[in-house]
Order: sequence, then structure tokens, then C-alpha cells
Amino acid sequence: MPRAVREQQMMDAAVQTFGQRGYQAASMDDIAELAGVSKPLVYLYLNSKEDLFTACIRREAKALLTAVAAAVDARLPADEQLWAGLLAFFTHTAEHPDGWAVLNRQARTHGEPFASEAAQMRDEIVAYVGTLIGAAAKETHRATHRDPELAERDVAGLSQALVGAAESLAGWANETPGMTAWESAATLMNFAWAGLGNLMKHERWSPR
Amino acid sequence: MPRAVREQQMMDAAVQTFGQRGYQAASMDDIAELAGVSKPLVYLYLNSKEDLFTACIRREAKALLTAVAAAVDARLPADEQLWAGLLAFFTHTAEHPDGWAVLNRQARTHGEPFASEAAQMRDEIVAYVGTLIGAAAKETHRATHRDPELAERDVAGLSQALVGAAESLAGWANETPGMTAWESAATLMNFAWAGLGNLMKHERWSPR
Repeated sequence: MPRAVREQQMMDAAVQTFGQRGYQAASMDDIAELAGVSKPLVYLYLNSKEDLFTACIRREAKALLTAVAAAVDARLPADEQLWAGLLAFFTHTAEHPDGWAVLNRQARTHGEPFASEAAQMRDEIVAYVGTLIGAAAKETHRATHRDPELAERDVAGLSQALVGAAESLAGWANETPGMTAWESAATLMNFAWAGLGNLMKHERWSPR
Repeated sequence: MPRAVREQQMMDAAVQTFGQRGYQAASMDDIAELAGVSKPLVYLYLNSKEDLFTACIRREAKALLTAVAAAVDARLPADEQLWAGLLAFFTHTAEHPDGWAVLNRQARTHGEPFASEAAQMRDEIVAYVGTLIGAAAKETHRATHRDPELAERDVAGLSQALVGAAESLAGWANETPGMTAWESAATLMNFAWAGLGNLMKHERWSPR
């Protein structure tokens, strides 16, 4: 078996163990056993528990960002882009609850260097969301000819709000039995796109 | 000086030290010096660094929740209640950046028992926000006679989204020079109440 394949198996086992038991309680013995390899091989390939955890954070963050970016088609209208991105986000976090627990909980709650690693990945996601909101605002600006454009700081603040809302909702959804990715995405889409004011009047956004 | 007053001074010093240096790096020597008392007195009153940190988390969470609840007048229309609550939240977090750092960063990133303490306080805030959203939805329901009411699970999800958005935005605002509490509150009010879709068409919500 090629080294790269075996490494991925070890990391699959590590993500599952870290996600379910937490960083402190997870042992390299558990991870090696779950991966079906010897503990020395895990150390040989991935060096230490700290390095293995960092590698897991990076892999899971990249997988999540890739899944969201792949779902968003820049040629679609802004609301359809947001909907596609949210649906991809909640689908990915629902299908990879251990990976999401590593990113959203474990990576942030065990000090450095993991917290910085998680913060850096989060900054990338916020910047990506900012690009989408900025592009959508420009498009609306062109279509409506209304001034002024959304200011850069507005866009930055809105990206922070949207990412924070998505993180919070995904954490809760994964702990709420029967909550589907579609339902989570629809809740946040309506909150973010239509706003609470419209939502309470039952003026919902719905996919075309 | 009465014990209660002295304890508050020690906790003021502790919040400042934990918030600015982080839980690990903060020493009981620093805290005692900043409070102008001897280290044995800090231990006598507050027992240990762990207990002192836990007491700080509880005090800061209670102060934040009290500030928000005091600003919200249940007799006002739903949008005015949300605006008042958000403005109080961002004003408090801007005026108490160390307390906010303790709650939003330090309490969550140093494992147990602090993470559970922070999670419990957060659950209380989410439940409080849920009560507000539920009451506002009922009021709108009565006024518009439109069915169906916002479902309980919708309300729970929206509360999670709103709290997550507020946390994220407050963390960013405190690190962004020149960002005012008013500006943060207005950004989130528009995001949450009017929605991105209206915001991009420059249909903003504004206080009456």
C-alpha cells in the first residue's frame, strides 16, 4: 500500500478519534488500532500527536473549503450562490461530524499552536465569503444603479456575521436529532438573505 | 475595606490579566500586583488560579447578559427590541474588551472545566435570544394573522445563528481600529433584520 494512502487511513482514524473523544483523551494507541497499523508506524509517518492533530485540522479545513467552493457557481445570481454555498457547508459538516468537531471545537479549545492554525483557516473562509458578498454587492449595484456601494468594512463585518452564524448553527445542528443539512441551510439562508423581519411576516426565500 | 469590595478588585485585575495575556501566561503574582494586594490574600479569597478564572467567566457572563436584558424593553416593537439588545451587546463588549476576551476566547480555549462553564453561559444567552425571537414572532403572527407560526425549531436555529453572528462580529470589531459599537450593531441589525438581499439593494433598517 502506498505511503500516501496509508497516511490518509491514519488521518481518517485520527479525525474520528479526536472528534469523538477530544484531543486530550485521544491516544496514539487508539488511533493506530482504529487505522489497523502499528503505533510506531503512526509516529514514523506523522511524527507526534501534536503534528498529527495539526495535519488533521489542515486536511479537514481544506476539505470543507473545497466542498463549499466547488458548489458555488460564480455565474449564478447572488442568492443562488449563497444558497449553494450554505447547502454545501451544512451537507459537508453533517456528513463529516468528526471533522467538524475537530475544526469547530477541538482545534479551538486546546491552546497553541492549534488555536492559531484554526484561526488562520477561519480567516481564509471569512475572506472567501467576503469575496462572494463583495461580488454580489457589485452585481446588485450595477443592476440597480443605486449608490453607494456596500463599503469594504460593511462587507468584512457581514462576512464575520455570516461565518459566525454558520459555525454556531452547524454545531447545534449536529447535536439536534433529525435536523437535516437542507433545514439548516434554509434556516440560515432565510436569516441571512431575507432577514428576520421578513421571515416573521412569512416572506421566505425559496430556491427557484 | 470590606471583603466583597476587595474581591471585586482582585477579579477586575484578574479579568484584565487573563483577557490581555491569556489564561496560561497570566500569573497570580501579576494579578495580585495589579490588584495592589498580596498573593496569599488572592489565594485566601479566591482559592486557586482555576477557581479565580471560573469566577471571572461567571461574573463577566452575568454582566453581559444583565446589560443586554436591561436594554431590552418588552413593550417595544420586535425590531426596536433587537436593535436595543444588539446595541447594548456591542457597547458592553467594546467597553469591556478584556471581559469579552475572557468569555469568547480564553474560556473556550483552555479545556475543562472552563469550556463547559462557557458553554453553559452561552446556552443561557441562546435561550434568552430564543425567547425574544419567539415573542416577536408571536406578536407578528397576531398582527398579520398569517399562518403558520415560526416553528420552535426555527426559533432555536435562528437564535443559534444570531448569537454566533454576534460573537464573531464582536471579536472582529474589538480588533478593528475605529469600529464603533453603533456600527457593529447596525451591521448585524441590517444583516439579521433586513437580510443581505435587501441590504444589497440599499434597503436598510434604521432606528425610528
